[in-house]
Amino acid sequence: MAASVLGFDVAKETDRIISFVREVVTEASAKGAVVGLSGGVDSAVVGSLCVRALGKDKVLGLFMPSYHTPKQDMEDARFLAEGWGIRAENIPISSIAEAISGPARVAGTKLARANVEARVRMSILYYHANSLGYLVAGTGDRSESLLGYFTKWGDGGVDFLPIAHLYKSQVRVLAEYLGLPPGVARKPASPQLWPGHKASDEIPADYDKLDIVLRCLFDLKANPAKAAREARVSVGVVNRVLEMHRKTQHKRTMPPSLT
Amino acid sequence: MAASVLGFDVAKETDRIISFVREVVTEASAKGAVVGLSGGVDSAVVGSLCVRALGKDKVLGLFMPSYHTPKQDMEDARFLAEGWGIRAENIPISSIAEAISGPARVAGTKLARANVEARVRMSILYYHANSLGYLVAGTGDRSESLLGYFTKWGDGGVDFLPIAHLYKSQVRVLAEYLGLPPGVARKPASPQLWPGHKASDEIPADYDKLDIVLRCLFDLKANPAKAAREARVSVGVVNRVLEMHRKTQHKRTMPPSLT
Repeated sequence: MAASVLGFDVAKETDRIISFVREVVTEASAKGAVVGLSGGVDSAVVGSLCVRALGKDKVLGLFMPSYHTPKQDMEDARFLAEGWGIRAENIPISSIAEAISGPARVAGTKLARANVEARVRMSILYYHANSLGYLVAGTGDRSESLLGYFTKWGDGGVDFLPIAHLYKSQVRVLAEYLGLPPGVARKPASPQLWPGHKASDEIPADYDKLDIVLRCLFDLKANPAKAAREARVSVGVVNRVLEMHRKTQHKRTMPPSLT
Repeated sequence: MAASVLGFDVAKETDRIISFVREVVTEASAKGAVVGLSGGVDSAVVGSLCVRALGKDKVLGLFMPSYHTPKQDMEDARFLAEGWGIRAENIPISSIAEAISGPARVAGTKLARANVEARVRMSILYYHANSLGYLVAGTGDRSESLLGYFTKWGDGGVDFLPIAHLYKSQVRVLAEYLGLPPGVARKPASPQLWPGHKASDEIPADYDKLDIVLRCLFDLKANPAKAAREARVSVGVVNRVLEMHRKTQHKRTMPPSLT
């Protein structure tokens, strides 16, 4: 019963996304799309969908490992790019990130450093996109968007978002439908912004439960008690979700100004 | 007659902006604001208003020159920061920008390189803001916003925009009202993203005329012929303004996604 709130027509969704990607790229008179491939499920699905939408010659994949990126992730990313037959480049980012944080006199926080990595990746993606006349494809999903679990103007700074309407657990279903390797489709979520970084350390429950909470709260307009029951979590978890959402509202909108 | 369409109550506007800055910073539970000081009129006005709103101890100024930044600009920026008595740091960006574009195998365009500089500055501003619990104050004005004359997720990537509702010529009036040096208040507009870079090379007319065109088109809903007459420019100039606005719509909104 609980999981059914996340049910969706995966074939239809694939077609809708492919049309959306084509439309956005055509509308912008762009020549293709750049995707940052991390080895995670979101970027694998976005890469796969961009290749289906635009053809392999119009997709550029970028691997942008830092010193703490798991080796397996880069192997997975390379495997995907080779399988699709797309051009791909490897640009390690740690020394660039260090060049940004190094000269500062403030005591840099772990989060500040993590965000620099995400923003360096954004800058590299756009350097390629701008030079080639491509768009930057975003890899964010709806779970991350609603929780604000992304870097403002980092992985959040993109041209279009092919899977931002799908929850993380739905993206995994889509990954299997697209024939992606199970090791990628089922890989634990992680932004990998510091050594051993796991999403589960920072979000209030696993995505399979959180996604039900988010779907109940934001799509089905259920109250917190009902959302907690559906997802089999405590109301405390639901309240933490609501709090994360509220505090990160500024990441989901353009900067405020007077009129 | 023509210039009167840009008339505004500069004292009242100053008070409104000061309240806005305080409100945004308080609402975010932030401890202050970071401002990138380029030596240009926009950042000078934003810096001055942030100091008035928050006090000099809660504003950090960052000078982020590249190898082609005019010496006078950095002297002006330092003069301002010293006059306000704020903390300020100098972080040259050319080697960082080069670290981002250097490893790429694509033939980088001039525009792609220019955008990297703006995005490096954004990343440095946020590294400081995140570490200190500050917000990043944006320095964009309404003329630049409507023309899309800024770098997406670069100088466009900020937390709040104190002067984005004022046209460039109104910002100059505000600068004089705030007692900023005439050399800053009247300095020709330039993003300084390459040697000798001037806004007037890229925009279809000077801002004193463009601002009237923009005000007529977007606030007073005048047709192109009427806007051209008011600003004493050709209809061709008005059409180029409309075209710039249309083509840069994507910079003024969050990335599109499906629902």
